[in-house]
Amino acid sequence: MIELCLIGIGTGNPQHMTLQAIEALNAQDLILIPNKGAGKDDLAGLRRALCTRAIQGDGPKIVEFALPVRDEATKSYRKRVDDWHDAIAEIWWQNITENLPAGGKAGFLVWGDPSLYDSTMRIAERLKKLAEIKLTVIPGITSVQALTAAHAIPINEIGAPFTITTGRRLRENGWPDSADTLVIMLDGDCSFQCIEAQGVEIFWTAYAGMENQISVAGPLADVTDQIIETRAKARAEHGWIMDIYLLRRR
Amino acid sequence: MIELCLIGIGTGNPQHMTLQAIEALNAQDLILIPNKGAGKDDLAGLRRALCTRAIQGDGPKIVEFALPVRDEATKSYRKRVDDWHDAIAEIWWQNITENLPAGGKAGFLVWGDPSLYDSTMRIAERLKKLAEIKLTVIPGITSVQALTAAHAIPINEIGAPFTITTGRRLRENGWPDSADTLVIMLDGDCSFQCIEAQGVEIFWTAYAGMENQISVAGPLADVTDQIIETRAKARAEHGWIMDIYLLRRR
Ligand SMILES: C[S@@+](CC[C@H](N)C(=O)[O-])C[C@H]1O[C@@H](n2cnc3c(N)ncnc32)[C@H](O)[C@@H]1O
Ligand SMILES: C[S@@+](CC[C@H](N)C(=O)[O-])C[C@H]1O[C@@H](n2cnc3c(N)ncnc32)[C@H](O)[C@@H]1O
Repeated sequence: MIELCLIGIGTGNPQHMTLQAIEALNAQDLILIPNKGAGKDDLAGLRRALCTRAIQGDGPKIVEFALPVRDEATKSYRKRVDDWHDAIAEIWWQNITENLPAGGKAGFLVWGDPSLYDSTMRIAERLKKLAEIKLTVIPGITSVQALTAAHAIPINEIGAPFTITTGRRLRENGWPDSADTLVIMLDGDCSFQCIEAQGVEIFWTAYAGMENQISVAGPLADVTDQIIETRAKARAEHGWIMDIYLLRRR
Repeated sequence: MIELCLIGIGTGNPQHMTLQAIEALNAQDLILIPNKGAGKDDLAGLRRALCTRAIQGDGPKIVEFALPVRDEATKSYRKRVDDWHDAIAEIWWQNITENLPAGGKAGFLVWGDPSLYDSTMRIAERLKKLAEIKLTVIPGITSVQALTAAHAIPINEIGAPFTITTGRRLRENGWPDSADTLVIMLDGDCSFQCIEAQGVEIFWTAYAGMENQISVAGPLADVTDQIIETRAKARAEHGWIMDIYLLRRR
């Protein structure tokens, strides 16, 4: 029997780790860390550092594996993602059977919270076809919380709804009717440029919770250019960027 | 100068505390804990216990205050809430000036994350009229994360949006167009009864993350009665309940 534990680690600030995450890390037999290779964000390095900090004494065995790349030749977005998840599941399985031949606990450090725009859980589900799997999830601080904390703002207006969505959806479908507050993730294109700026406030943060956190806030019309420039500069400087923003219309 | 620090503590599991929250707690001069009085949920007790666990050596002074009640005679919901926040801000201010006459750091332990359906930040904003205030927010695990962790499910479908809203909104406005996934909070009335159950799955959890966590999941039509009964029984047994659920339509 294999126990898979998906451990939310927060968004890059080692202090985001919960006591529960630290306990879970220490309880694993094996930790698998994906590595995107040189020139990408150094999230593997960050995960390694978190393990070193959090694991006491005789900890789990830590194994890194090369993350396969998506096959951009596959036309359908959904199929491209599905194939990629299949390929990762296969690599997990190889590493697990090699390192835990008699079964045991394998842990994964998941950026932010494992439930939010992350594929680790969907990959874990695939292993259920291959073996008896027990799946446990340890919640983590999300980039949504890191964003609202950076600006010290509530996410919702009193008793009001909010919608969390992606840059692609905002571009393709515009502002959804149901909520006056949106949080936009996974946006490489500053998609806030596509909406009517009148009456909209933006709260934007890159590297939320991390040492090099940058925040810009204000009426969308006034700060659009500033955010685009700040983002481009930071991205060039660090080689990678992660950003998130909240839009509120009045 | 007064520094106010709103510290997210997670949803009742002491292990939800982050390293950052523990550090922030220890750095305060004063911690203010609201007390609802006997017969209510014992969240004051839980906050006291968290302080005892987390604070090392010469910690901050811990002061409890009686939470005023909302004036139900005030007809407008919004005014009722505003007046109540004003009253709490006044009590905070009395306690802060009494205990920190020369200024300093006052901390508040906020259930879950301070940004999410919580009034602490709005009360803190009111003090800015009375003094120079620096406001810091420490993110915490939300009940949304505790819910999805309890069921080991992703919150979103691949690349898809989701909306977080309240029981009242679901009853009054029905299912919003914007998303096929909803998370419902602040629902004392099992408002999932008001929507068309056909094709909808529900993932329901009470006391998420806590020792007495209870979860029910399944097609809404099949588990509606079970959730209503389970909820009523648990509420009677514990004297209080907090529950949250995710609805997904296909
Ligand atoms: C694949 S999703 C993973 C989200 C993660 N599971 C979470 O809970 O935040 C990546 C997106 O999350 C957001 N994100 C994650 N970490 C961030 C950070 N430290 N600062 C800003 N945005 C971040 C960005 O929008 C990014 O495109
Ligand atoms: C006033 S809001 C506070 C939310 C909190 N700030 C958070 O981040 O989760 C209270 C609502 O949160 C949800 N909630 C909070 N803690 C919960 C728990 N442990 N289990 C289930 N629901 C919870 C319930 O829907 C409840 O009505």
